[in-house]
Amino acid sequence: MPEPTDDCIFCRIIRGELPCHRLYEDNHVLSFLDIGPISHGHCLIIPKAHVERFDQLDATASGACLAVVPRLSAAVMSATGALSWNLLQNNGAEAGQVVPHVHFHIIPNVDGRRLRFEWTPGQLDADAGKDLAAKITHTLNQT
Amino acid sequence: MPEPTDDCIFCRIIRGELPCHRLYEDNHVLSFLDIGPISHGHCLIIPKAHVERFDQLDATASGACLAVVPRLSAAVMSATGALSWNLLQNNGAEAGQVVPHVHFHIIPNVDGRRLRFEWTPGQLDADAGKDLAAKITHTLNQT
Repeated sequence: MPEPTDDCIFCRIIRGELPCHRLYEDNHVLSFLDIGPISHGHCLIIPKAHVERFDQLDATASGACLAVVPRLSAAVMSATGALSWNLLQNNGAEAGQVVPHVHFHIIPNVDGRRLRFEWTPGQLDADAGKDLAAKITHTLNQT
Repeated sequence: MPEPTDDCIFCRIIRGELPCHRLYEDNHVLSFLDIGPISHGHCLIIPKAHVERFDQLDATASGACLAVVPRLSAAVMSATGALSWNLLQNNGAEAGQVVPHVHFHIIPNVDGRRLRFEWTPGQLDADAGKDLAAKITHTLNQT
């Protein structure tokens, strides 16, 4: 697994050089409260391996991170009284990623504070969809 | 695993009663292009089990869905030319969930069309954080 880096803020939290309010930890994963929460209970799950983006994460680290989500999100909802929540994970600065170490946001909806996003859907053209699906599956089958 | 329901649109797609542009399928998971895409390449990953929310999904279905993400997102980026992307998953109508069957959105950033969200962070108070973390971990340790 990739080595932690000296200057990554999440690697420093993993090493205990920076404090956090820890929620869960195992050999592959650490979860803690976000220090800049969007809502009460907003927390992060990160792999211990220093990997920048989810599309670069191996199956072990990916599975370990996501296996935590159902139990942890249920516990966050129970503790905060939230009835709904969002999972958000950003890859690349232009997609809103601030810390270049994979992290999953669990953002509960508490007292009207929640993740708010624009949703302006297009319409998938049948022929264009067929071509695009063929292109994606072709690439997928080569990996 | 829970049985598909007669009236769930995603269960009907799984059964082949409604069409889709399929990208990937295995025993537990189906992925296809979103028919109301936010951006070119926007696609969905769903478990075949009819489960409403991620916090209710069992480890097998959860792991199967998420194991697909790294490869599929890399293929979507390759096919669309996107350099960044978001994973979004909504639980509960008040969190923006429209179809009550767990689904993960992969939304690539293509030609400026991307997931746009508000980000107004608060500041986590150290004492409040300590109390909240204790409450969440207490619940987590009981499950």
